[in-house]
Amino acid sequence: MAAIRVVLVESKFEGNVGFVARAMANFGLTDLVLVKPPKIGEEARRRAMHGLDILESAKIVGSLALAVKDCGLVAGTTGVDAKNEKRFTRLAISPREFAERARSYSGRIALVFGREDYGLFDKEIEDFDILVTIPASPKYPVLNLSHAAAILFYEVQPGPTRRVSLATGFEREKLHSTFADLLRSTEYPPHKFDRTRVMFRRMVGRAMPTKWEFHALMGVYARAVKRIQRLEAKK
Amino acid sequence: MAAIRVVLVESKFEGNVGFVARAMANFGLTDLVLVKPPKIGEEARRRAMHGLDILESAKIVGSLALAVKDCGLVAGTTGVDAKNEKRFTRLAISPREFAERARSYSGRIALVFGREDYGLFDKEIEDFDILVTIPASPKYPVLNLSHAAAILFYEVQPGPTRRVSLATGFEREKLHSTFADLLRSTEYPPHKFDRTRVMFRRMVGRAMPTKWEFHALMGVYARAVKRIQRLEAKK
Repeated sequence: MAAIRVVLVESKFEGNVGFVARAMANFGLTDLVLVKPPKIGEEARRRAMHGLDILESAKIVGSLALAVKDCGLVAGTTGVDAKNEKRFTRLAISPREFAERARSYSGRIALVFGREDYGLFDKEIEDFDILVTIPASPKYPVLNLSHAAAILFYEVQPGPTRRVSLATGFEREKLHSTFADLLRSTEYPPHKFDRTRVMFRRMVGRAMPTKWEFHALMGVYARAVKRIQRLEAKK
Repeated sequence: MAAIRVVLVESKFEGNVGFVARAMANFGLTDLVLVKPPKIGEEARRRAMHGLDILESAKIVGSLALAVKDCGLVAGTTGVDAKNEKRFTRLAISPREFAERARSYSGRIALVFGREDYGLFDKEIEDFDILVTIPASPKYPVLNLSHAAAILFYEVQPGPTRRVSLATGFEREKLHSTFADLLRSTEYPPHKFDRTRVMFRRMVGRAMPTKWEFHALMGVYARAVKRIQRLEAKK
């Protein structure tokens, strides 16, 4: 089972932060990081109830990058599901699918929640490995922040664990840069380059490759890149 | 799928009632009955957001019996799980088990939530058909009322619908044969060939690519294969 770090990005209302701390205590989570939070005062503390310790030991940082930097996998939550498949950056899995993956991962996963009004920006989620959306009524899919958090926490509670060793964040980054090399070596159209890389990142995020799978796939791409380079050198 | 009526018994805080109305709107529920509620004012309305209609059309009654009298099945929620099987009145099922039952029931089910502090009394739950408990941390299993409600509503939603279209079996086979072409074009070691193909098949199986992702990935591999073939032809 992964260690889950909860990251709240620029929450506006301290009450929501307190409610999230309480919900964390309800589901056995403790690691809370706040990115540019509102002033945490009486209301947040009152809402936190027995999650007060979690609220008071929360780390406050100035950027999302700092909040997730020691996490092997970064998952963002979004209320905006892809209406259109091509809006690939928003393609998301369900909380249950996310929980299954978290159970088989042994590193630390950041679970990131955006602002109450604007959520997470496209720019912020570009490098995320996984996006999670709570299935809800198409008429009004926007949940209160702490309710969305409680549902996610409820799903990721510890359960049966899988004991395979998964690729680390470092290994995954190597796979992604090799995939980018492969694109370049095929003279991939520049206007599609970024979205194809993000598409690949999301697919790998959902597939959660083991170390062995990572090495095998990486090996295939590296071979293809080398073969193209060698053949081009001979031209 | 059953019609779900949400019943709140003697809630103390209007904010919680508002949050419950919002969560109902999020998960497509509309039938709310309040048993001796607190005064419903500005705070409840603000919290209800787009659930305001639900809040304003909620029926107010003076007893639990009146609230559930036209329901075929009555389910109560409790944070106190049976420590001891002998406390049979508190034996409960999980929200997921409840949702499965609700899906196969065609009448109206009352889903009853108790007071913020004392929950539902033994006397009240005696005649209930089902008790539901949200599995939570033994150290602090008491959820905020609206969080517990949101988790229950999330579970009883009509079956999961993923709105993206997934690659068909035929498309997936094409991806796999293109991947095999890529292996061949890199002169992949024959003794590793089959196991790498199987590895890739499993990864894709877990990633569940959409049609769009399938075409994008397929395109990358096909380009690499073609590029290698073209360069070889020029040798």
